[in-house]
Amino acid sequence: MSRNERGKHVSVSQMTTVRLMMPTDGNVLGNVFGGAIMRYMDEVAGIVAFHHARKNVVTASIDRMDFYAPVYVGNLLILKAAVNYVGKTSMEVGVRIEAEDPLTGTTAHTGSCYLTFVALDGNGKPSPVEPVIPVTADEKRRYREALARRKMRKAMFGKRKERV
Amino acid sequence: MSRNERGKHVSVSQMTTVRLMMPTDGNVLGNVFGGAIMRYMDEVAGIVAFHHARKNVVTASIDRMDFYAPVYVGNLLILKAAVNYVGKTSMEVGVRIEAEDPLTGTTAHTGSCYLTFVALDGNGKPSPVEPVIPVTADEKRRYREALARRKMRKAMFGKRKERV
Amino acid sequence: MSRNERGKHVSVSQMTTVRLMMPTDGNVLGNVFGGAIMRYMDEVAGIVAFHHARKNVVTASIDRMDFYAPVYVGNLLILKAAVNYVGKTSMEVGVRIEAEDPLTGTTAHTGSCYLTFVALDGNGKPSPVEPVIPVTADEKRRYREALARRKMRKAMFGKRKERV
Amino acid sequence: MSRNERGKHVSVSQMTTVRLMMPTDGNVLGNVFGGAIMRYMDEVAGIVAFHHARKNVVTASIDRMDFYAPVYVGNLLILKAAVNYVGKTSMEVGVRIEAEDPLTGTTAHTGSCYLTFVALDGNGKPSPVEPVIPVTADEKRRYREALARRKMRKAMFGKRKERV
Amino acid sequence: MSRNERGKHVSVSQMTTVRLMMPTDGNVLGNVFGGAIMRYMDEVAGIVAFHHARKNVVTASIDRMDFYAPVYVGNLLILKAAVNYVGKTSMEVGVRIEAEDPLTGTTAHTGSCYLTFVALDGNGKPSPVEPVIPVTADEKRRYREALARRKMRKAMFGKRKERV
Amino acid sequence: MSRNERGKHVSVSQMTTVRLMMPTDGNVLGNVFGGAIMRYMDEVAGIVAFHHARKNVVTASIDRMDFYAPVYVGNLLILKAAVNYVGKTSMEVGVRIEAEDPLTGTTAHTGSCYLTFVALDGNGKPSPVEPVIPVTADEKRRYREALARRKMRKAMFGKRKERV
Repeated sequence: MSRNERGKHVSVSQMTTVRLMMPTDGNVLGNVFGGAIMRYMDEVAGIVAFHHARKNVVTASIDRMDFYAPVYVGNLLILKAAVNYVGKTSMEVGVRIEAEDPLTGTTAHTGSCYLTFVALDGNGKPSPVEPVIPVTADEKRRYREALARRKMRKAMFGKRKERV
Repeated sequence: MSRNERGKHVSVSQMTTVRLMMPTDGNVLGNVFGGAIMRYMDEVAGIVAFHHARKNVVTASIDRMDFYAPVYVGNLLILKAAVNYVGKTSMEVGVRIEAEDPLTGTTAHTGSCYLTFVALDGNGKPSPVEPVIPVTADEKRRYREALARRKMRKAMFGKRKERV
Repeated sequence: MSRNERGKHVSVSQMTTVRLMMPTDGNVLGNVFGGAIMRYMDEVAGIVAFHHARKNVVTASIDRMDFYAPVYVGNLLILKAAVNYVGKTSMEVGVRIEAEDPLTGTTAHTGSCYLTFVALDGNGKPSPVEPVIPVTADEKRRYREALARRKMRKAMFGKRKERV
Repeated sequence: MSRNERGKHVSVSQMTTVRLMMPTDGNVLGNVFGGAIMRYMDEVAGIVAFHHARKNVVTASIDRMDFYAPVYVGNLLILKAAVNYVGKTSMEVGVRIEAEDPLTGTTAHTGSCYLTFVALDGNGKPSPVEPVIPVTADEKRRYREALARRKMRKAMFGKRKERV
Repeated sequence: MSRNERGKHVSVSQMTTVRLMMPTDGNVLGNVFGGAIMRYMDEVAGIVAFHHARKNVVTASIDRMDFYAPVYVGNLLILKAAVNYVGKTSMEVGVRIEAEDPLTGTTAHTGSCYLTFVALDGNGKPSPVEPVIPVTADEKRRYREALARRKMRKAMFGKRKERV
Repeated sequence: MSRNERGKHVSVSQMTTVRLMMPTDGNVLGNVFGGAIMRYMDEVAGIVAFHHARKNVVTASIDRMDFYAPVYVGNLLILKAAVNYVGKTSMEVGVRIEAEDPLTGTTAHTGSCYLTFVALDGNGKPSPVEPVIPVTADEKRRYREALARRKMRKAMFGKRKERV
């Protein structure tokens, strides 16, 4: 396949990282704020996009995020992120977030989200990104699904002028 | 109208707040992270929901957020938030975000987003919230649109088990 | 009135902002530090002065601040700030601070304070500021009182060499 | 002298501390915020009051603070604090603040301020504090001046209901 | 082998995490502080020890750390941590730290360090930890080397009273 | 003595500083992280080295640190730091750390550590540092011990290429 002959494998940039939830991440009852979780998610996804593109990146959009279960101060937030799809200058990164009680090891699925990043050149203008090469069955499914989401976003929100 | 005879006006809880973007909010080039903006947005929206419900609230979901324009360290982030719609135990809060260059006073629309919060009782279980009473034409339009979004969310994502 | 024919209205720059008090703002018993409150107050007052002057500003002095009531971690700090008076290159900004228990909605007056800011040009030298135009009876009273305080400060502390 | 026969010497609790000014302490031009300086000042003064009283303390008031010279990110803030005077349940702490350029060693007097703290018992009520014993000529002068300020504060601001 | 028949594999708790170096991590020239690196290292190593022990852990000692190369604000800090050896109530965790320039992908070895953690029971007393089972050749070598270090520490610093 | 005829006294740069341990310094049980203590230690030691050298400094190595006793959120961390020895471009700084319960005044020895800093010129290259002049018996003993540690480090870890 010509398409996949150049580009980078998903595995090159995919990443799992872990963050201990601190008192400044939540309210006085110990519930971690949804926004604090989004902050960590965007940071990790941005590193993955940066690793794929090897260029500065900015967040262009963040898809709907549904919080399935509460996260508490003292929990570990486990963030798994990978590039799903690459357009001309943009990348969709998927993140799966779990919260772990470190004493018991029990984890719960906090939520999953898709973020779109745009790569920038030295003048802050959108800049081409190498394609991503999905290899495993999961990577290929996520690639197809990301492509479908991209089409639906264009249909719902209009053609995106890429953010500069 | 029986519906509007009890409940709280939108104006009781709506709020505008301003935050100075600091070096820890952005990358070394001075671009504020999308996730940092989401963090501030969730905090402000949570205060609005808390003010409407007078109960502890948690973020149940955050709708898609599109970043229309970059925000820089040193900018002022202006966040305008109001309760659009209230369900039995949940509230949709809408936030409009602008970034201002404080030297020139120029503002740009950064993005807008809808967040759903659930009110909790003392045991952390979902707890009823007073209705919201839209009064102005804008408030009534936002109420209708929020109701339509609520229906679309149910159709797209299934009936939400409200988060506890 | 010649004086008021140019300049900016108080309402152009006045601002109310709200901050959730976090564990890092207080001691282990949950009492918010007086200094943490001053930090937020100076930030909000500085934004108001910046909005009036549309120039960089620095804090030249902060008048006596009396803390009337304790503030607790988990409270909302409500800060209301407005330009009271404008000299040649300096502005007096008044801030009224209230603390709210978000569950009950009860607020208490934490304290009020007057801060003087100096506008700076591109070389960091004091730079002229447009006059402020008080319109309402309250704004006019605050203008007169600020002028009286300015005279008393000069009498008590000597003519201020404006900070550069 | 009966008065000085019990109590603690000023030297027991006086303290000098040094803080490196970080990017989050100032604006994008590198000017440290007045409020950030007040935050550090209140923290250091509170430790001195705590060391004198060996009880929890809260800030009751902060006198006027005049900023004589700018402080920059990268400077060292040198804070010298001592108990000047002790009332029944309150203490006046004086703080002298200098800013040092660590490369040259040049220091400038940033400002000086007087803070009043109230000691609290286990129920958060004002609680008696041991007298302070000034020994050196400077300590005795500061004691007299603090007593005069206390009288002037009562004349200007009315008898303080001590904060609980 | 009886020894290795119970316990947990090294791979169960080993972890790689990545942190973006922020302006608050370094000085005004952009050099990340050695202490900031130690802070992140201790956090990651503590999570690894927590994951192995499934009990609260505290840092008992940190071995000598040599910084081979500077780390800059804007770099990614890559921290790889694993349990090397387990005593009765203590664990040695090894951490290898690299700094990456995200634009070029170039990494440099910042340093490596060994930390000893003690597991605590609910009363804060040292509490037994399951053995670790090294499987790969590298894990076995690190196990032997950790055992040798443990003997040398005892010889050099005396038998450690484990910290409570 | 020719050696001591030029250089700076230990007393010129030695320093004691105090930091209140905050919720973000520890875990949910209130135990302050070892790494947080190292962070404060490195900051204080770096200021001492900066004061001796009057040049930018970076941490080259941190010797083994043994934590003798736990530190809790709400404790005061007392850090005493002084230059022990000066090489051509490097300095050994010793730090003694105590934790104080501010209510009782009880202090415990948390640990002691030796850090090596290298002075840098304007191009970030190692740059000569003035000798240190030990005066008191303690300073002279610490000087001799630091010299011995330096020899042992060279024997154990090889001749250090000084970090640039």
